[in-house]
Amino acid sequence: MSADPLLDETIDPAEVAVEEGANEGRPDDRVDDERHDEENRLKPEYVRAVRLALEEDRKGEVYELVEPLHPADVADLLELFDTDERTDLTIAISDLMTGEVVAELNDWVREEMMEALPADAVALIADQLETDDAVQLIEDLDATDQRAILAEMEAEGRAAIESALSYPEETAGRLMSREFVAVPEHLTVGDLIDYLRIHGTVLGDFFEVFVVDEAHHPVGTCSLSWILTTPRKIALTDVMKRDQTLIPVQMDQEEVALMFQKYALISAAVVDESGRLVGQMTVDDVVHIISEEAGEDALLLSGAGDGDINEPIREAFSSRVRWLVANLGTALVASLIIAAFGGAIEQLVALAILMPIVASIGGNAGTQTMAVTVRAIATNQLTKANTGRILWREARVAILNGVTVAVLVGIGTALVFSVPLGAVIALAMVINVVTAGLAGVLVPVLFERAGQDPAVASSVFVTMVTDSMGFFAFLGLAVASGLVS
Amino acid sequence: MSADPLLDETIDPAEVAVEEGANEGRPDDRVDDERHDEENRLKPEYVRAVRLALEEDRKGEVYELVEPLHPADVADLLELFDTDERTDLTIAISDLMTGEVVAELNDWVREEMMEALPADAVALIADQLETDDAVQLIEDLDATDQRAILAEMEAEGRAAIESALSYPEETAGRLMSREFVAVPEHLTVGDLIDYLRIHGTVLGDFFEVFVVDEAHHPVGTCSLSWILTTPRKIALTDVMKRDQTLIPVQMDQEEVALMFQKYALISAAVVDESGRLVGQMTVDDVVHIISEEAGEDALLLSGAGDGDINEPIREAFSSRVRWLVANLGTALVASLIIAAFGGAIEQLVALAILMPIVASIGGNAGTQTMAVTVRAIATNQLTKANTGRILWREARVAILNGVTVAVLVGIGTALVFSVPLGAVIALAMVINVVTAGLAGVLVPVLFERAGQDPAVASSVFVTMVTDSMGFFAFLGLAVASGLVS
Repeated sequence: MSADPLLDETIDPAEVAVEEGANEGRPDDRVDDERHDEENRLKPEYVRAVRLALEEDRKGEVYELVEPLHPADVADLLELFDTDERTDLTIAISDLMTGEVVAELNDWVREEMMEALPADAVALIADQLETDDAVQLIEDLDATDQRAILAEMEAEGRAAIESALSYPEETAGRLMSREFVAVPEHLTVGDLIDYLRIHGTVLGDFFEVFVVDEAHHPVGTCSLSWILTTPRKIALTDVMKRDQTLIPVQMDQEEVALMFQKYALISAAVVDESGRLVGQMTVDDVVHIISEEAGEDALLLSGAGDGDINEPIREAFSSRVRWLVANLGTALVASLIIAAFGGAIEQLVALAILMPIVASIGGNAGTQTMAVTVRAIATNQLTKANTGRILWREARVAILNGVTVAVLVGIGTALVFSVPLGAVIALAMVINVVTAGLAGVLVPVLFERAGQDPAVASSVFVTMVTDSMGFFAFLGLAVASGLVS
Repeated sequence: MSADPLLDETIDPAEVAVEEGANEGRPDDRVDDERHDEENRLKPEYVRAVRLALEEDRKGEVYELVEPLHPADVADLLELFDTDERTDLTIAISDLMTGEVVAELNDWVREEMMEALPADAVALIADQLETDDAVQLIEDLDATDQRAILAEMEAEGRAAIESALSYPEETAGRLMSREFVAVPEHLTVGDLIDYLRIHGTVLGDFFEVFVVDEAHHPVGTCSLSWILTTPRKIALTDVMKRDQTLIPVQMDQEEVALMFQKYALISAAVVDESGRLVGQMTVDDVVHIISEEAGEDALLLSGAGDGDINEPIREAFSSRVRWLVANLGTALVASLIIAAFGGAIEQLVALAILMPIVASIGGNAGTQTMAVTVRAIATNQLTKANTGRILWREARVAILNGVTVAVLVGIGTALVFSVPLGAVIALAMVINVVTAGLAGVLVPVLFERAGQDPAVASSVFVTMVTDSMGFFAFLGLAVASGLVS
């Protein structure tokens, strides 16, 4: 064997230089094949072919079409279909409907499918899955269904799921995997390899081995690559990393995700209150959490709740209408302010024409600052230690923004209406944009300090502040300046 | 050695049951210690202690305070400080300022620090780092600075960085690691282990071994846990996974992130146009991309650009004011519509009082739908194959929302003003909320089809549609119904 192809530490850059436009002939077996487009989505023509075969009841053809897909792609295909088609497809490809497919399904779609199946069928699927995936399968079902399914399951799997369900949702205890490798401190690298060769085949993929003391407390972690590259006679305690990141069972998934990101973890030990190793979290499970937690803020800020295109219509309606009604309340405050200046508007209809501009720009400026603040809080970048500095920073950005926009609107108004009205609207703009900047920081920060998720309700409050202040500053200044009485 | 502590596949659930409220005595060495709060953020008291020691020029104390921190926490500490404090801190802890700390810094903070350092100092840091981190260090600097730093670097590192920089930003070629293990097909598991024991110590952590043919094309992947649990005499080609996910060098980081999530990858081979293995991406690098890509939509939708609390003020100003000015344009459209109905408002000032309600609720409904749509597009859930179904779904949600809100506002208006005005505003509400729902889906979908990022500009257009339609429907119906002339 030659050393050259075995260890590629550096590659001649000349060999990897990209020819511009040279995009053809990609060797990937998943991207850009006859079923996937260049962004790895199932091609509409492919989906149409499956749908057509399904409608015309050519089950054999449906099976042939779906069979080459990766389980994650089978899940994607199911999600693209509507409820009736999904049922037909499931029947047509029943033996391709593995636990892996079910685990990859969107939460709403999975819940809907599980509710439609009898308890013993769900139990059969749950028995195939790893504990964490099986938990996901049944945690959203109601308690009666859960009990019925658990009763049908094998004892071992049932016990693990019951243990997981005893922890609150979205905590490490609920999400952790109960399969892991823990070894005592006195082993050598060779002992461990011999043991794994004999007993390790029953395990799935694992990336790290945890070293524990007699009390089953983790004392260190060994990456498999160190084990493979260290002489057999070396003691594990000499190669293991002692500086570990331990995850308490009660830790919220958002914190777990931040820990994995911050310390670039591949897996981490989960410990109970007394410090005993009870499970592990691995990065392939955490990536879903990271994506979910980072993505949900855009949805929460917009007032769309858990917004997902697979959410049942009545749930989408009830989570969204709540915020629309809340927003009605804040719009009412704005209307009351306008009503207080009804006389002024009757005298000078230009006020009615211009007032939405002040409110709209203020609202936009507030939303910008709020989005930045919420993201900074979510990533632990904005803490008590730097709130003052960030508030001052945002105030300065707001002054720059406010003055720029005020000059534009002020000149435009002066040209179309009058110079005094231009001055009034310009001043109102500066006041409202600066107010928006301060509210955009303070509202989410105060929600966070009060123990609330700043993404959930900040929007309504910031909008209320910017709308009310916009109308009040503009109409109030118009009256105060003597433009109208 | 007893089998029991060695392989924990199942744990007695009784042993891990959580006692409610039992939250004390967590054994974690990073969470809840004297420097971190329960969410793993640096405690304000700790930050204050460092700041005070720094201000009073007690360098030794600063060093002692910072020394126990993980490099990722040193990076967090630097980010919490302002520019001047950062420089002082860097000097006080200079030998703790490892490459790892620099790699963990926020992009803006790192760029600012690198710009302040002479080229040879940056080169010294870059030489310590892995290629992907070194690239991140210098990719945002201007070309002259880049050349000066590269000239000071060691030849090997320089060549790898130059190769990376030859690929566009945010592509696999730019981000991949050039260190990986590739082995020929004819090896057995034993051959590989022997080889790794001799030569593998020079490598960092790795999780998978790539098997390549003579042309250096990847033919399979071996997870280290399979290698450790398989008898030595078995051929690698018998344990490797042939169904691989290959990443083309030109692939955008967003697609890379989605592939890692979808197929639960730990590492993946990166191949050039001719299918040769040229690098690897590992999940610990991808988690940052996942978080960034999922989180940026909330910022883009709000018009805050790359919004980050560490972004320099002038850049925050320029990226935000652009959208405020664009919004001014859309607000102008709304004002023109109001102006067209100036006479009606003079006759009935209640119109001016109520019109912001119609526009505001419409804007909110549009934002909800838009956020859901943008997220579904970003996660490849909304494709050409299901656009029609999703549009119909959102239309139904919008009708439910619109009718609910219309009834509330209609009744309120009828009580306060008049029944005909209540009817007019209720109808305008339904029209505007339904329009908002359709625009919330169609605007981002059309941007996506046109090859644009739907998160960037959708807001402005959706707001323009909902504002204009809100004022037009309400004021137009008021005139058409004969309420005003």
